[in-house]
Amino acid sequence: MRLKNKPWAHDLVDAHPEKILVRPEGEIDWQARFENPALPIRIEVGSGKGQFIIEQAKAHPDYNFVAIELQTSAAGVILRDELELNLPNLQILLGDGKMVDTYFKPESVDLVYLNFSDPWPKTRHEKRRLTYKDFLASYENILTDSGHMEFKTDNRGLFEYSLVSMNNYDMRFDYVSLDLHNTDDEVYANNIQTEYEEKFSKKGHPIYALHAHFGAKK
Amino acid sequence: MRLKNKPWAHDLVDAHPEKILVRPEGEIDWQARFENPALPIRIEVGSGKGQFIIEQAKAHPDYNFVAIELQTSAAGVILRDELELNLPNLQILLGDGKMVDTYFKPESVDLVYLNFSDPWPKTRHEKRRLTYKDFLASYENILTDSGHMEFKTDNRGLFEYSLVSMNNYDMRFDYVSLDLHNTDDEVYANNIQTEYEEKFSKKGHPIYALHAHFGAKK
Repeated sequence: MRLKNKPWAHDLVDAHPEKILVRPEGEIDWQARFENPALPIRIEVGSGKGQFIIEQAKAHPDYNFVAIELQTSAAGVILRDELELNLPNLQILLGDGKMVDTYFKPESVDLVYLNFSDPWPKTRHEKRRLTYKDFLASYENILTDSGHMEFKTDNRGLFEYSLVSMNNYDMRFDYVSLDLHNTDDEVYANNIQTEYEEKFSKKGHPIYALHAHFGAKK
Repeated sequence: MRLKNKPWAHDLVDAHPEKILVRPEGEIDWQARFENPALPIRIEVGSGKGQFIIEQAKAHPDYNFVAIELQTSAAGVILRDELELNLPNLQILLGDGKMVDTYFKPESVDLVYLNFSDPWPKTRHEKRRLTYKDFLASYENILTDSGHMEFKTDNRGLFEYSLVSMNNYDMRFDYVSLDLHNTDDEVYANNIQTEYEEKFSKKGHPIYALHAHFGAKK
């Protein structure tokens, strides 16, 4: 969802190159950007206002996190909150999820999160969905051998599409929930919610989740 | 679901060996049992009272159908209805779905239907679920190269389990619906319902569907 334009976001982003990269080109030295460069990296493609990735970074100081977001206004909100918290293990990247395998080296990422991605419901926009096969190929490139993906959405059409797309790409499913907020599964005992997740689950929409890895191909 | 015992069922079944096979052992000459032996065979594992397979047989005279059902009372209900209709392309088999690859020759079946199968929710009963890997291996044996499976259920736990189990078995998904009765998908424009499907969808339960084949392995 597109945020209202936040005029302050642009200047804030420009003022904090230590926290946020703006449409970077060429190789990024992630090691130099984190206080503890030895920690495994987890990324979220499409972070919105960042509630999920900020809570992850707070809850898991043993991982480094990168929030990737395309909209300056949304990235500005993440940055504003991050400057208050000053988390040593969270970086922001203002850029396109399509470029993810130029932002990260092969086999350098531990986990790719997709949360409430734009469903692009029209068939002619299939290639823009973040679970389209070209995106999956990028995630496969950057994930380590033990790495995996975690995907949540309330959008039925996108989830149906993604189950087929990820299966057809030979991904191996580790976990599926068709109603995450009504489950006893241990794996979600400490579920960290996104803004959308809170809003839509309150309206009674089921939240769908899928965990998968690329092991079948290896 | 277990039906109430129908005392008449046993005698009816015994009286109609031309329509129903009872726990057969050894090879079955299906060709001899159908009026048109050249038609491709479609089977339903766990037919209950048979509404689905009878409607399929009526709607598709270009296929031969076999209803497999474990309970004599349920098989008796199918037989009673079948005797009234006398469909030349429907046979009944009173027997265990686990034995499906002794009932059919390798690569002799065009389609395996699973409809509203017993969910066996307890983990210790996983092996009884009709989408457990040993069952999938049986279906794989008997399906032709172009054959596939169609699975419907209203049981969330069974559907979540089956998505993972069928994916992990390297099955290739062709179609997923997470709410079959609220979809415009062409594939279900002429959906034939089971008794349970009518009952549970009226209660507002979403009906889940998955079509898949074993192509990925071949």
